[in-house]
Amino acid sequence: MKELVLLRHGESQWNAENRFTGWADVPLSVRGRHEAELAGRRLRESGFACGAACASVLMRAIHTLNIVLAALDCAWVPVHKDWRLNEKHYGVLQGHNKREVEQEMGEEQVQRWRRAFDCPPPPLLPGDERQPAREAKYAGLQPGQLPCTESLRDTLLRVRACWEELLRPQLYATGALLVVAHGNSLRALLMYLRGISPTGVEQLEIPTAQPLRLVFDDDMKLQP
Amino acid sequence: MKELVLLRHGESQWNAENRFTGWADVPLSVRGRHEAELAGRRLRESGFACGAACASVLMRAIHTLNIVLAALDCAWVPVHKDWRLNEKHYGVLQGHNKREVEQEMGEEQVQRWRRAFDCPPPPLLPGDERQPAREAKYAGLQPGQLPCTESLRDTLLRVRACWEELLRPQLYATGALLVVAHGNSLRALLMYLRGISPTGVEQLEIPTAQPLRLVFDDDMKLQP
Repeated sequence: MKELVLLRHGESQWNAENRFTGWADVPLSVRGRHEAELAGRRLRESGFACGAACASVLMRAIHTLNIVLAALDCAWVPVHKDWRLNEKHYGVLQGHNKREVEQEMGEEQVQRWRRAFDCPPPPLLPGDERQPAREAKYAGLQPGQLPCTESLRDTLLRVRACWEELLRPQLYATGALLVVAHGNSLRALLMYLRGISPTGVEQLEIPTAQPLRLVFDDDMKLQP
Repeated sequence: MKELVLLRHGESQWNAENRFTGWADVPLSVRGRHEAELAGRRLRESGFACGAACASVLMRAIHTLNIVLAALDCAWVPVHKDWRLNEKHYGVLQGHNKREVEQEMGEEQVQRWRRAFDCPPPPLLPGDERQPAREAKYAGLQPGQLPCTESLRDTLLRVRACWEELLRPQLYATGALLVVAHGNSLRALLMYLRGISPTGVEQLEIPTAQPLRLVFDDDMKLQP
């Protein structure tokens, strides 16, 4: 039996301010740190014996992971950080208040950008200072790998590759893997693992800092 | 040019209580967390552009590292945890108050156990609950790799292997490596890198949470 725990990071400062975040690298709020602490205690009480952990390269996920591992007394486990677990890239919406964008563009359009499978927000322009290529954390990647916006379909493609190349082998090898990521990268991963349809995924919401436990058998078949 | 920053963890709870720690896995004290935060700020002000980081598998080093990386806005860098960066194993002394051991065994003997190159404390007995083999974090190692006491010479042997196999390649590849470890593992590393003699190392003390910066040229020759 193999145990996979998926965890969305605790509340970030921009969650609290109701702003689109995406790849913007925003710290946890005080409440978010507290949520992470509670998630760690819950996992500890459940007897989760973490063998390895993975997170995106965004600080709200990594800080959540650090807090959870400390609560689990598992700071020593190997941690792998992978950009393919990042939140969906929200293009030009990043940094803007969701309510204000709704007022300008309409609630229906915003809901499509947020929840639909195939509807990327308008892309960042080449000179935009929010371009990922300007950040040291993406220096090792090819320019063609870095998005300037994403649909959930785009996010799914990279999350799927991350599952096959990193998460699945780590889960198989250690038997107990913790993955701390984001609302949309976890929606994409669940779509893939559970065969959820593009229509079905529109209803799927992932709450912050609530551990979601998936069990696989020894042949890596997901149990119902 | 390559930059290596060595950092001893902040004060641990047992440092504060004046107890021998070694491989006992003890958290930072409140003061230790504060020291780590200050070390991170100092490194940030110095312009250190961390490319990767290494720590022991003991929580006082890993938590120090996490605090420093957060202060550097570098939570995303790859982190490698390696038991070979652990503190010297202090055998049966682990957990005991240093003053009490001095009263029983004499100051001179305790000073030899703490600072001499070739003087291991009495070993843990096979059934001792402090044996590393009982801990999940060492489950991947062979029983013969795990010490039940160490001299600084023993510590040097594993630290040297860690330098050649992990630290040196990481420093070469990234150009800026942060290593968070312990008083004696860092004394051993400095012995090796700077060619300090077994007698000379007796005088070498490493203060907690003071970044020590070593510069190598592009051919990995340590600069004076």
